[in-house]
This record gives sequence, C-alpha cells and structure tokens, in this order.
Amino acid sequence: IMAQILRNHMGRNHNDYNEPSVQPKNPYLVTMEEDILYHFSLSTKTHNLPEMFGDIKFVCVGGSGIRMKAFAQFIHQELKLPGSPEEIKNICEGTDRYCMYKVGPVLSVSHGMGAPSISIMLHELIKLLHHAQCHDVVLLRLGTSGGVGLAPGTVVITDKAVDYSFRPQFEQAILGKVISRSTELDEGVANELLQCSSELQNFPAVVGHTMCVHDFYEGQGRLDGALCSFSHEEKCDYLKKAYEAGVRNIEMESTVLAAMCRVCGLKAAVICVTLLNRFEGDQITSPHDVLVEYQHRPQVLVAHFIKKRLGYIV
Amino acid sequence: IMAQILRNHMGRNHNDYNEPSVQPKNPYLVTMEEDILYHFSLSTKTHNLPEMFGDIKFVCVGGSGIRMKAFAQFIHQELKLPGSPEEIKNICEGTDRYCMYKVGPVLSVSHGMGAPSISIMLHELIKLLHHAQCHDVVLLRLGTSGGVGLAPGTVVITDKAVDYSFRPQFEQAILGKVISRSTELDEGVANELLQCSSELQNFPAVVGHTMCVHDFYEGQGRLDGALCSFSHEEKCDYLKKAYEAGVRNIEMESTVLAAMCRVCGLKAAVICVTLLNRFEGDQITSPHDVLVEYQHRPQVLVAHFIKKRLGYIV
Repeated sequence: IMAQILRNHMGRNHNDYNEPSVQPKNPYLVTMEEDILYHFSLSTKTHNLPEMFGDIKFVCVGGSGIRMKAFAQFIHQELKLPGSPEEIKNICEGTDRYCMYKVGPVLSVSHGMGAPSISIMLHELIKLLHHAQCHDVVLLRLGTSGGVGLAPGTVVITDKAVDYSFRPQFEQAILGKVISRSTELDEGVANELLQCSSELQNFPAVVGHTMCVHDFYEGQGRLDGALCSFSHEEKCDYLKKAYEAGVRNIEMESTVLAAMCRVCGLKAAVICVTLLNRFEGDQITSPHDVLVEYQHRPQVLVAHFIKKRLGYIV
Repeated sequence: IMAQILRNHMGRNHNDYNEPSVQPKNPYLVTMEEDILYHFSLSTKTHNLPEMFGDIKFVCVGGSGIRMKAFAQFIHQELKLPGSPEEIKNICEGTDRYCMYKVGPVLSVSHGMGAPSISIMLHELIKLLHHAQCHDVVLLRLGTSGGVGLAPGTVVITDKAVDYSFRPQFEQAILGKVISRSTELDEGVANELLQCSSELQNFPAVVGHTMCVHDFYEGQGRLDGALCSFSHEEKCDYLKKAYEAGVRNIEMESTVLAAMCRVCGLKAAVICVTLLNRFEGDQITSPHDVLVEYQHRPQVLVAHFIKKRLGYIV
C-alpha cells in the first residue's frame, strides 16, 4: 500500500510539473475515495489500475466489440508478442456495455454507436488513463463511415470533425445550458498517418473533414429510413454542400471524441473507411467479404503507425 | 413468390384503409426493390419477414444485449411456452450492433446507449414491423436510470419524455436544419402499466416525467466525470429544478423513442428502474446482486402487462 501511495504521489507530481499526458478537467476527482468506472466494471479500489494499464501508449477505439477484438488479435500478431492471440481476454467481461482488450502497449476498446455512447466510454477511459498514470498516449478511432464523393473502401484521416452544419464544434448541454467545444484533431498525428498510408501498397487514403451527426438516417440525408421528409434533390444538394465545405465522410462519433480529447490533453486521430459513396446511394449493398476487407483497412494503417512509433519499422 | 406478393398486397391494402399499426413516414420505401436492415443483418430479399415476425404484438427494448436475452428467457418461462429458454437464438447473430430474440408474440431487442444508437435500431425496427405487416404492436422500453428524489429501486413509468431544459421535445437535425418533435407517450399504456404495478406485491412504482440527455456525466450534472465545470451547489440546484418540473428520473433514450414512435403510430411506453437517488450522489455503488434485482423489476412489470393482455391473468 505504501509503495502504491508513493507511486500515486510521484505520478501526481510528475503530472503537475512535467509533461502531462492525460488530464481530466474535474477538481472533484481528487476528493473521491473510490472511483467506480461503472460502464467498464472497474474501480480504483478493486483493481490496480497503474499495474494493469500503466504501460499503455496507444488506445484504439471503434464501434463494434467484435471488430475491436479482431484488432487486438491482429496487433498481437503484428507486434509478434508472445502467447496466442486467441487467449486475449475481455477486461470488461463484468459488463456488456463495452469490450476492452490489452495487447502490450495497445488498448483496444469498443464504444458502441453515436456520440452519447462514445462519450460515456471516453469519460471513463480518460479517468482510467489518469488513474493508471499513463503518459504520451495517442488515441485512435478506427471506424466505418459513409463516403462523400469517394470510392468505397477509401480511408479518410480526419483533420477536423464538423457538425451537421459543417462547423468544427460539439454542442454539450450542461445543467440546462448548451456550450460549444472545438473539435480540431492533432495535426501531427494526422500527417504521420497520411505518411504511413503512402508507405503501404495500393492504400487509398485522403485527409479531409469528417461530418459527425446524431443519427444514421435523417441526419445523414438517407432516403431509406423509417422517416424521410425530404426529396432526392434536397438530399443531393446537402451532400454537395458538405463536399464543398471539405467533408469527405460522415459518421457519428468524431466531434465529441475530438472535443473531449482536446480538453484533456489527449492527442487523438480519427481514421474511418468509407463503406459506400453517398452520392451513389444510401444502402450498404457490398458483399459481406468486401465489407470485411474494407473494415480491415483502418486496422492495417494503425498497425503500421504503431509499429513505426515502436521502432519495428525504420 | 406469388403468395408473397399477394400477401404483401393485401397487407398494404389493409394498412391503407384499415387500422394501421406501424406506418413508416417515408414515401421512398415503396420504391425500393430490396430493403437491407443493415444493423440487424436482415433484408427483405434474404429473409421472409412476415413469416418471421408477422405475429409480433410486444416489442421490448433495452440497452444491454445480455439483459434483453435474460428478458427473452424470463418471458418464455412466464408464458409457459414449449421448448427450453436456453435455446432462444439471437436473430441478429450476423452483427454485434444489436441483439434480437423472439419469444412467441414478444420481440426482445437491445439498443445500446444514447439517442443515436436507439434511433438507428428504431428506424430499422419500424421498417421491419412494417415489412412484416405487424398490427396492434406495443413497444416497451425496459431501462435503467438515475432517480430524482426517489428511493433506489423505484420503477418510473414515463408519462412524458423531456429534454435537458424540461421541454417535451426531441430536436432532430435534417439536412442542416433542426426540427423539433413532440415526445408524449401513450397515456393508455402508461395507466395500464401503473395498474399492473399496483397488482404486484411490494412493487415501488410511480408515473412521472423522464429527462433524456445525451451524456451520462456533464449532461446529468454528475461531479465524477473526466470533465466537470460546475459546483456541487449548481448541480443540486439543477436537479431540484428538474424535480419541480416533474422529472423523476434521467436516462438517455426516451425522447427520441417517444418522438419516432409517435410519428409512426406505434404505441410506446418507457419503464425504467432507478439505480440510485441523484440527490444522494453520482456513483452507482450498490452491490452487484442488488443492482441485478433492481434491473429485473421492469421485466417483472412488463411480463405482468403482457400476461394480462394475452389473457393469462384475468
């Protein structure tokens, strides 16, 4: 216990006076005797978070638990770590809200669909990284999206996450008032990812704005939802305006991710593959195996990025 | 195929001129040759939806897949249906976005956390019920929530879903403009549920407004998130105002559920148990077995409601 207290103490000093990596912005946190990360089924009292997570340098997040498990197994192979990738265990097995896998310095976490779902995960993840005294962490979202004027399968590296009216902001209601937060992502990490993509064979990647909306159908101008109150022409006009504003893909988590990571000093990137070109249609009609290959592309790019940073590739 | 076309045709006539149960509001749907319900991994071409789902009368939804599977097994026992509850299969096993179980006339579906996540599910569910020509369907959300001035474990039957400023509306961005939809729930079903609760032994239930917000921490006035920019006093003021406005619990899905079901003529109810009293704290600290028992309460109430409607209880 004494070692733990000392370690916490040293960690805190290091955070205060050195280069902090992940800093929650909440003065009440230090007053809490225990912090239950409810949706992870973890707690500062029942788990030794510094021991479990202290060496994390890359946090990779994505919507689907199955996909994030596959990524954990893939990165295990890519990093040539000992043991079988089949034996990687879900750290959050006490709950089915999120899945979490740890592979060396890489944490792979699912976040479900939509800004509220990923925001719960990010609150608890940022606190987890803080409690674990992690430093120099990069967070990377590996997602799927609808493309705007791009061939299906293109990987979009986000420079700026924008809202439904193409503004780089996330609106957050706090105690009955709405505040607005900036959603710029880390430029250095985005450029590093673009460089990585150019080093891969036949890897279609672009840097562009990503529009984040709060539903899959009406908010994205789809004509195939249960509700649709606009015409095909109005839809096309909206997508054209989005394209002209620099939007290259549409998904549902990037603005809140960018906003929260910025506030807490966590460098973040969003890498989404496009499953279709929204100028061509609304339904996702590609065969299953084609979609599986598309969904693997952000993983290939991020694996390359991680291997370069770790010195596996010079 | 001919029988299918005839059945579709008859179904459509019935919907047009008789009492329709579930009516998507989208003129483009009839023009579609195939409708892929992507996040369910179902389609009108690969699945016979009327045969699979035509007899559905109760759709029960909740955030967690594990909980909705447990509910399917529970209602199987309660309805004394043949076969083993252990053998109930996940209809959406081709995806991990949502889980879906069918038990006689009851469909049990998970929806993840937050309005965007449930909205994707509801778009595809409403189209599914329509394609399957279902009639006289009731949709019931069985959820968890934070209580406002109620003892933990109290079940709140929602009369009205309200937003962060206590207004009965859901704001939806469509092609760059924000529209507002009403969020009143079906009064008859709420009263029927309250009557059911009074017939159960020692069952703490109230009717009240449910506040739906888009995050778990700042939006709900919690002091234990990664971000917190307000004081304990400001938090308490906000919760008091909410209580005075008639709010009895806080969750993250009810407004969009109420809005979408209203527009499509689907009678809906929201039944959430409170896991804590927010006047007392923010963290969910009750022991696991207590929380499990709390989470079972909406299931007990809804099972009673279904059994009464089906004539099991007179």
